[in-house]
Amino acid sequence: MSRTETDSLGPIEVPEEAYWGAQTQRSLINFAIGSERMPLAVIHALALIKKAAARVNARIGALPADRARLIEQAADEVLAGKHDGQFPLVVWQTGSGTQSNMNVNEVIAGRANELAGQGRGGKQPVHPNDHVNRSQSSNDCFPTAMHIAVVRAVHEQLLPALHELRAGLHEQAGRHAKLVKTGRTHLMDATPLTFGQELSAFVAQLDYAEQALRASLPAACQLAQGGTAVGTGLNAPKGFAEAMAAELAALSGLPFVTAPNKFAALAGHEPLVSLAGALKTLAVALMKLANDLRLLGSGPRAGFAEVRLPANEPGSSIMPGKVNPTQCEALSMLACQVLGNDVTVTFAASQGHLQLNVFKPVIVHNLLQSIRLLGDGCRNFNEHCVKGMEPDAARMAEHLERGLMLVTALNPHIGYDKAAQIAKKAYAENTSLRQAALALGYLSNEEFDSWVRPEQMLEADDE
Amino acid sequence: MSRTETDSLGPIEVPEEAYWGAQTQRSLINFAIGSERMPLAVIHALALIKKAAARVNARIGALPADRARLIEQAADEVLAGKHDGQFPLVVWQTGSGTQSNMNVNEVIAGRANELAGQGRGGKQPVHPNDHVNRSQSSNDCFPTAMHIAVVRAVHEQLLPALHELRAGLHEQAGRHAKLVKTGRTHLMDATPLTFGQELSAFVAQLDYAEQALRASLPAACQLAQGGTAVGTGLNAPKGFAEAMAAELAALSGLPFVTAPNKFAALAGHEPLVSLAGALKTLAVALMKLANDLRLLGSGPRAGFAEVRLPANEPGSSIMPGKVNPTQCEALSMLACQVLGNDVTVTFAASQGHLQLNVFKPVIVHNLLQSIRLLGDGCRNFNEHCVKGMEPDAARMAEHLERGLMLVTALNPHIGYDKAAQIAKKAYAENTSLRQAALALGYLSNEEFDSWVRPEQMLEADDE
Amino acid sequence: MSRTETDSLGPIEVPEEAYWGAQTQRSLINFAIGSERMPLAVIHALALIKKAAARVNARIGALPADRARLIEQAADEVLAGKHDGQFPLVVWQTGSGTQSNMNVNEVIAGRANELAGQGRGGKQPVHPNDHVNRSQSSNDCFPTAMHIAVVRAVHEQLLPALHELRAGLHEQAGRHAKLVKTGRTHLMDATPLTFGQELSAFVAQLDYAEQALRASLPAACQLAQGGTAVGTGLNAPKGFAEAMAAELAALSGLPFVTAPNKFAALAGHEPLVSLAGALKTLAVALMKLANDLRLLGSGPRAGFAEVRLPANEPGSSIMPGKVNPTQCEALSMLACQVLGNDVTVTFAASQGHLQLNVFKPVIVHNLLQSIRLLGDGCRNFNEHCVKGMEPDAARMAEHLERGLMLVTALNPHIGYDKAAQIAKKAYAENTSLRQAALALGYLSNEEFDSWVRPEQMLEADDE
Amino acid sequence: MSRTETDSLGPIEVPEEAYWGAQTQRSLINFAIGSERMPLAVIHALALIKKAAARVNARIGALPADRARLIEQAADEVLAGKHDGQFPLVVWQTGSGTQSNMNVNEVIAGRANELAGQGRGGKQPVHPNDHVNRSQSSNDCFPTAMHIAVVRAVHEQLLPALHELRAGLHEQAGRHAKLVKTGRTHLMDATPLTFGQELSAFVAQLDYAEQALRASLPAACQLAQGGTAVGTGLNAPKGFAEAMAAELAALSGLPFVTAPNKFAALAGHEPLVSLAGALKTLAVALMKLANDLRLLGSGPRAGFAEVRLPANEPGSSIMPGKVNPTQCEALSMLACQVLGNDVTVTFAASQGHLQLNVFKPVIVHNLLQSIRLLGDGCRNFNEHCVKGMEPDAARMAEHLERGLMLVTALNPHIGYDKAAQIAKKAYAENTSLRQAALALGYLSNEEFDSWVRPEQMLEADDE
Repeated sequence: MSRTETDSLGPIEVPEEAYWGAQTQRSLINFAIGSERMPLAVIHALALIKKAAARVNARIGALPADRARLIEQAADEVLAGKHDGQFPLVVWQTGSGTQSNMNVNEVIAGRANELAGQGRGGKQPVHPNDHVNRSQSSNDCFPTAMHIAVVRAVHEQLLPALHELRAGLHEQAGRHAKLVKTGRTHLMDATPLTFGQELSAFVAQLDYAEQALRASLPAACQLAQGGTAVGTGLNAPKGFAEAMAAELAALSGLPFVTAPNKFAALAGHEPLVSLAGALKTLAVALMKLANDLRLLGSGPRAGFAEVRLPANEPGSSIMPGKVNPTQCEALSMLACQVLGNDVTVTFAASQGHLQLNVFKPVIVHNLLQSIRLLGDGCRNFNEHCVKGMEPDAARMAEHLERGLMLVTALNPHIGYDKAAQIAKKAYAENTSLRQAALALGYLSNEEFDSWVRPEQMLEADDE
Repeated sequence: MSRTETDSLGPIEVPEEAYWGAQTQRSLINFAIGSERMPLAVIHALALIKKAAARVNARIGALPADRARLIEQAADEVLAGKHDGQFPLVVWQTGSGTQSNMNVNEVIAGRANELAGQGRGGKQPVHPNDHVNRSQSSNDCFPTAMHIAVVRAVHEQLLPALHELRAGLHEQAGRHAKLVKTGRTHLMDATPLTFGQELSAFVAQLDYAEQALRASLPAACQLAQGGTAVGTGLNAPKGFAEAMAAELAALSGLPFVTAPNKFAALAGHEPLVSLAGALKTLAVALMKLANDLRLLGSGPRAGFAEVRLPANEPGSSIMPGKVNPTQCEALSMLACQVLGNDVTVTFAASQGHLQLNVFKPVIVHNLLQSIRLLGDGCRNFNEHCVKGMEPDAARMAEHLERGLMLVTALNPHIGYDKAAQIAKKAYAENTSLRQAALALGYLSNEEFDSWVRPEQMLEADDE
Repeated sequence: MSRTETDSLGPIEVPEEAYWGAQTQRSLINFAIGSERMPLAVIHALALIKKAAARVNARIGALPADRARLIEQAADEVLAGKHDGQFPLVVWQTGSGTQSNMNVNEVIAGRANELAGQGRGGKQPVHPNDHVNRSQSSNDCFPTAMHIAVVRAVHEQLLPALHELRAGLHEQAGRHAKLVKTGRTHLMDATPLTFGQELSAFVAQLDYAEQALRASLPAACQLAQGGTAVGTGLNAPKGFAEAMAAELAALSGLPFVTAPNKFAALAGHEPLVSLAGALKTLAVALMKLANDLRLLGSGPRAGFAEVRLPANEPGSSIMPGKVNPTQCEALSMLACQVLGNDVTVTFAASQGHLQLNVFKPVIVHNLLQSIRLLGDGCRNFNEHCVKGMEPDAARMAEHLERGLMLVTALNPHIGYDKAAQIAKKAYAENTSLRQAALALGYLSNEEFDSWVRPEQMLEADDE
Repeated sequence: MSRTETDSLGPIEVPEEAYWGAQTQRSLINFAIGSERMPLAVIHALALIKKAAARVNARIGALPADRARLIEQAADEVLAGKHDGQFPLVVWQTGSGTQSNMNVNEVIAGRANELAGQGRGGKQPVHPNDHVNRSQSSNDCFPTAMHIAVVRAVHEQLLPALHELRAGLHEQAGRHAKLVKTGRTHLMDATPLTFGQELSAFVAQLDYAEQALRASLPAACQLAQGGTAVGTGLNAPKGFAEAMAAELAALSGLPFVTAPNKFAALAGHEPLVSLAGALKTLAVALMKLANDLRLLGSGPRAGFAEVRLPANEPGSSIMPGKVNPTQCEALSMLACQVLGNDVTVTFAASQGHLQLNVFKPVIVHNLLQSIRLLGDGCRNFNEHCVKGMEPDAARMAEHLERGLMLVTALNPHIGYDKAAQIAKKAYAENTSLRQAALALGYLSNEEFDSWVRPEQMLEADDE
C-alpha cells in the first residue's frame, strides 16, 4: 500500500503510513548503509528549528499565520516524540544532512496537511520547501540542529552525571581524609598520603574536564541559522538570523546566539572540534580513575588490595567466587570509544570544501554518542562503584609500615645520600628502615621516632 | 510477572518471558550505559561455540549425550535467530564479555530446560556453567567468538562488496581505456593520461587493501578456545582446543585453527589490531576514491566537470535543481568513522593487563561496525555512483588541448629549461603552447606537431 | 679523558668537559633510543625553576645565601643558552623526566662548584639534590617545567604567528570585499558570495581556534611546584608552592599560579590535553584553509583557477613551467602531524598510575613540536602564500555568469519546484538560466533581470 | 661568499660551500618551518636511485657513459655519507618531495661537475634535471625512495632488534618454565600458570606483530619508479621501470620489484598504511609488555613485587633509594608516539588528489621515526630490562598459596555453585580455601589434597 509523492526528480512511491515524501524515500533507497540512524536528538532539534522558523516567518509576514500554525502544531508533535518512527534515514547519507532536513520538512508538511484535512503527505497547503523550510537551507538548519542537539546533550545528559560522580568522589575523599596510606609513583612505593588526598586528585581532574567543557560551550551556542545556502543569508529576511537565535534560546532555555560569521558556521566546525577536545579531556580523566581503582582493588590476595570495590555480580563463568572490577572496565572501554570518536570528529571537521563541510552527520553522530556514553558512564560508575567502595584500612596500614620511602623524611636531617644508603640496605636485607638506619649509625632510635612519622608527611613542612 | 533465578550472589527476579538467568539480569541493572548492544554476530558466534562444545564434550564423555542434544537444539534456535530479543546486554559491560557469555549460557540452558519440560530458565537438567559452558571459560569463549564474528563478517559482508566495487571500477576503466584527458598532480594540470588509467589506480588501491585484509586473516583464524581461564586450559580436556577448532571450522566453513599460544590469545589482540590496520587501509583508499570523484564531478559550470555522477536525488532544500555527490559524501564519512574506530581498537588492544585484555567488547563492536560500514559502503557506492557515472568527453578534450604540461614531451628534444620557458610564456600571455614555442623559436611547427601528441604520452617511450 | 662522579648506585666515569654528573651519565647509557632530545624549552624552564627555587629557598632560610647565589648564577648561564650542549638526554627516558631534572641539577651544581673554584662537577659546595633541588622533587619540577615551556611557546611562537596569518587573511578579505564569485557547496556550484566573504570564513575559523587556545591557558598556567614527591609537599616548606608560582610569574612575565590540587597536577595532565585539543582545532582550520586555496588555485587551464597563488619555485623536476601550491602542502602536512601528535598526547595523558603520570616527556615533546609547527606554519603560509595571492577576477566572472544556482533567487517569486525545472532544463540543454526560464514561460525577461542579480544575492533580504 | 645558480624562476645566490643549486636554495627560504629535516635515509635512497638510473640510462643509451660515470661517482659519495650536510631541507616542504629530489639532483650534479673540473655546482656537463633526473620525475623517484628507506629500516633497524627482544623473552620464559605463580585476569587473582607461560605470551604477541610486519613488506617492495610524472611513464624509456627495480634490488640486496600499477603508486600509499598498521601492532604488544612488567615489578613492599627489574639508576631526586621501572616507561612512551604517528600517516595517506598524493614527506618522516623508535626500543628494553630481570620466587609462592582461585579445580568434582560458596566463605572470613571447604563439608581433607594442586593446573586435563 503506497501513495505517490513527487520531487524535482519525478514521482516515487511512498508507504501509505509514512508522513514523509519523495526525498526521504529516495534517501532510503540510495543509502542502504549500516544501521546507525540519524540521532533523534538531531531530528528533534530540527523540529524545534521548524517551529521557531514558523513563528519568526509568521511574525515578519513571510508565512501566512494559518500555515505557520499548522507547521508549529506538527512540529510540536514531533517534539513530543509522537512521530519518532518517521525518521528512518541513516547517518551515512548526504554530508550536509539535507536528507534529514528534508525528512523533517516532509514529515511536518505531511502531518500538517493531514491536520488541514488534506490527507497525509503532499505539499498542499503546506509545502516542505516553500513553507516548512521557509527562509532556511539545509546548510544552515543542519549545523544549527547539530549545535542545539550537542549543547542540550551536554547540559542534560553530561553535566548532571558528571556532577554526580564528582560528588560521589568528593564525599569519599572527605570520609577518608585522615586515612594515611602508601603513595606510589612509577607504580613503586613512595611517600605517604591520605586516601582522601588520593581521591581528591580525581575530583580535581574532573574539574579540569568540566572547565574545558564549559569553555567550549559559548562557541557551540553560536548558531548558523540565517546563513542559508552559502552563508550570505540569501532568501532569508534581514534579521532572521538574530530572531531565530532568540526564538531558539527562548524555546530551549539555552543561551543560543547567532554566529558572528555564517560562512565559517557552514564551512567549518571548529567549535565542535573544541568541544570534542573537551570530551576527550574528560575521557582521559575517567580512564585514569578506572585504572587506579582497579589497581587499588586488585587481589584479593595477590594484589594491592587496598580498596574493596562493590561485588555487583559473579565475575567468571569458570572461576567460582571471583569478583571483578567490571565497572572500571565498562568505564575504560567507553573512554576508548570517546578517544576514537574524537579522531573521527577531528578528521571529519578538517575535510570541508569551500562553502560547506559535508561531514556533518558523522560529526554529530560521534559527538552525541560520546556525550551519552560519558554521561551514562559517570552516573553508572558513581552508582555502582564509587558509592560502595571501601578502603581496607588494615591492608593500607600494613603497606605503610613496611614501606621504605618514609626514608625521605630524613633528607633534611642527614642528606639525600645517607638516606639512600639506609633505604638500599633495608631493601637488600629485607629489614625495616629503622633497623638499617641504626645499623648504619646515622641516627639514634629517638631521632628515628621523631623524624619518621607518616602522619606528619602529608603536607608541606612548618617552619 | 517474574520468576526467581539464582547465582553465587543470591536470588534475583527475572522477567517471566526471559530465557536468561541471574547474571544477565544483574548486568542489565548494573550497566545502564548507552544503547549499543553486544552485536548479534558475537551472540551467534557464541551460540556456535556452545553447539560445538556440546558436540565435542559429548564425544569425549565430558557431557551426557542427552544434555548435549538439548544444548545443541537450543543453540540451533539461537543461531536461527529465534531468540534475538533475549540478548539485551550492552557493549559497556565487563571487559571480558563474561556477561554476554553468561547471557548465551543462560538462554541456552533456559531454553534447553524448557525443551526438557522443566519450565523456562533454571539450571535443571542443563546448568549454564556446568553444562553449557563445560570445558570453557568466558576468557577463551569470548575472544573465540570475536574472531569468528569478525572473520565471518569479512568473508560475508566485506569481501563480496569489495569485489563488486572493484568490478564496477574495473569495468569503467576498461570502457574508457582510450579516453585521453588531463592528468593532475598537486591539483595542477600535468601530463595526460586516459580516464581508464585514472580509474585503474583505484582498482589497484583496492587490491592493496584486499591484500592487506587477506594477510590479516590467518592470525584472525586462530582461536583462543581451549585456554579457559588464563590460557593453561585448566578444566578443559586434553585435545579440546584442537577438537573445537576443527568443529568450528566444519560448522562455519571457515579455516579456523587453534591458536599456538593461548596465553597471548586471551591477553592480547594483535591479530585484530592488524586486521583493523587492514580495514583502515581500505578506508584510506575509499576516501581518495570519493574525493577524486567528487572533484572530477565538481561543477557543473564552475568546476572540473569532467565526470557526471548519477543524479540520485535533489541536492538542496533551497537551491532548486542542484545535484550533489552524495554517494561520495556517505563513503567519505564512513571512512572517517573507520579511521576513528581503528584508534579505539588500537587503544583498547594495548590496555590488557597480565593474563587478560578486558577491552574485548569495545574492540569487537568497533571492528564489526567498521566491516559493516565498509561492506555496505562499497556495495552502495558501486551501485549508486560508479555504475552510473559518465565522463564528459568534450570537457576532457577542452581541458586537454588548453593544457600547458604537454610541454613535458619536449624535454628529450630541447631540454627542461627551454621547455619551461615555453610553458611560462604561454601561461603569462594566455596563449597556446604552440604559439609560445614558435614565438621563442625553439622548434618548428612541424616539430611541435610530431613531438606534442597527447595520445602518445600515455606510456613509457619506445626506443 | 674523564672524571669520576658518584650517585647512590656508585661511581661512574663522566667526560671531563661535561658539567653533568652520574645520573645524567647513566641515562645516556641506559637510553640509547632515537634522536629526539629533551626539548631545550623544557631544559630552560627547569633552569628557571632552579633559579626561582634558589631565591625562594634563600629568602626563607632553607638555603645559605652564598650557595643560592652560585645556583642562580649557574642557572642564568643555562638560561642564556651558554650550556645548551650539556643536556644530551633523549625524550625516551624515565617517564617522570627525573633524569632531565637531574641533568639540570647536575649541570647547575657542576658549574656552580666550578664558579666556587672547586673544579667542574662534584657536589661541593653545591649538591645537585640537597641544594639545587632543595624543596623540590622531579615529580613537581618536571610538570611545572612542562607548563612553563608550553605556555611560553604558545605566547611567543604561536599566538603572534597566528595573528600574522589572521591579519593577512583579513586584509585580503577586505581588499576583495566586493568581488562577487560563485559559491560552492558539496563542491558543486551554488549561490554567489564575494571573495571577501569567502576569505572571512577563514578569519572566523582562526578566531574560534584562538578562542579555544586562550580558554585552555588558565589551567595550563597552574603549576605543580610545591607538591614534591606525591603531591603532599613533603620536604617543601609551607608557602613554597605559592612563593614559587609568584617568583616564576615575575621572572617569566606570564600569569602563573599554584595549582589548587597538587595530587592532580602530578598524576594527570588534563590541562595539557585540553590545550592539545585547542591546537588540533587550529590544525583543522588550517587544513581547510590549505585545501581551499589549492582548490581555488587549481589549473591553470583545467581547474578552478580562480586564485593565483605565488609561484615561489619550479614545481616539477620533469614538467617544465609547472607551479604548485607547495605552501598549502607544507601547511596541510603539518596539520596532519599535529592531529597525530594530539593522539599521542591524549593516549599518554590517559596512562597515569596513582600518584604520577609517567608519560611526561612524550607529552611535552609532542606539544612543543605541534606549537612550533603551527606557529612556523602560520607565519610561513602568510608570508609566502596569503600575502601574494591574487584572485583572477575574469575567471570568477565567467564562472558566475554561467552558473545555474542563481536560480535560487527565484524561489520567493515562483517557488522551489518551478525554479528547479528551470535549472534542470538549462543544465540538460547546456543553455543559460534565462533561456530556460523564458522557454518555460515562468517569468518575463524583465522579471529575470530584476530578480536574478548576483550582486544582490550577497546578504539577507531587505523587507 | 656565494655564487649564482639559476632555475626556471631566475637567478639566486647560493652559499659558496654548497653543492646545491637554485631549487634547494628557494626551498630553504620558502619553508622556514620546524626543525625536522628530510631523513637522511630518504636522501640516501634517492642517491641510490640516481646511481641506478645513471647505470640504466647509460646501458640503454639514454645518457652518455661519461656523464653516467660522473653521476655514479658523486652518488657514491653521497651514499658514503660524505655530503650529509648538503641536504638541509625540512620535511615541511612541497608534498611531493620534489625539493628534496632536486636537492639530491643538484648536489650530485654540483659535485659531478666539480669532479669534471668545472667548479662546484652549475649544470655543465651534468645537468640536475636533464641528466641526474633523466627518465625520472620526483613523482616516481620520491615514493620509490620512501619505499626503499622504509623497507631498509625495517630490515636493518627493526627486525634484528625485534629478534633480540624476542630471544631475550624466550630465554627468560625457558628459564622459568616450571615456576608456578598466580595468574590474574581483570587484575584479580585467578588460576595459576608458570612464569614461563606468562612470558611466552609476550613472545607470541611479538610473533604476531612480526608476522603482520612481514606481510606488509611485499607491497612495500613494489616501486613507483618508471611512472614519471603521472604514472604513464612519459619520458622514461620502455622497460625502464623493470630495469630500475632490478638494479635497485641488486644494489640494495632487497627484493624490490616494479609496482604493477604506477598510477596507484604515485597517487596512493596503501602499502605504507598497511605497514603503519603493522608497526602499531608491534607498539600495542610492547605497551602491554611494558605495562605488565612494571605491574609485576611494583613494590617493593606495597605492590605485586613478583619480579625484580634491574636497578639501572637512582629513581628519584627526592626519595632516596627509590628504583623505578624506567625502561618500561621509555618503551611505553615510544609506543604512544608510534600510535600517534600511525594516525598522522593514515590521515596523510588518505588525502591524495587525483594523480598524486602530496603528503609524502610527512608520511615517510613518521614511518621512519616509528621504525627507529621501535627498533631502538626493543633492543634497549631487552638489554636493560629483560635480560636482568629476576622473579621473586618466594613472593610468588606466597601469593599462590594464599590464592582463592585454586578453587576452580573443584568445578569438575563439586560443581561451580558449591565451589563458589567455598571461595566466598574463605574470602569473607579471611581463611584458606581448605578451611572453608572443610567447614562447609563439601569435601574431605584428602580430596582437597588430591584435587587442589597448583602444579597440576597448568595445562588441559588428562582424561
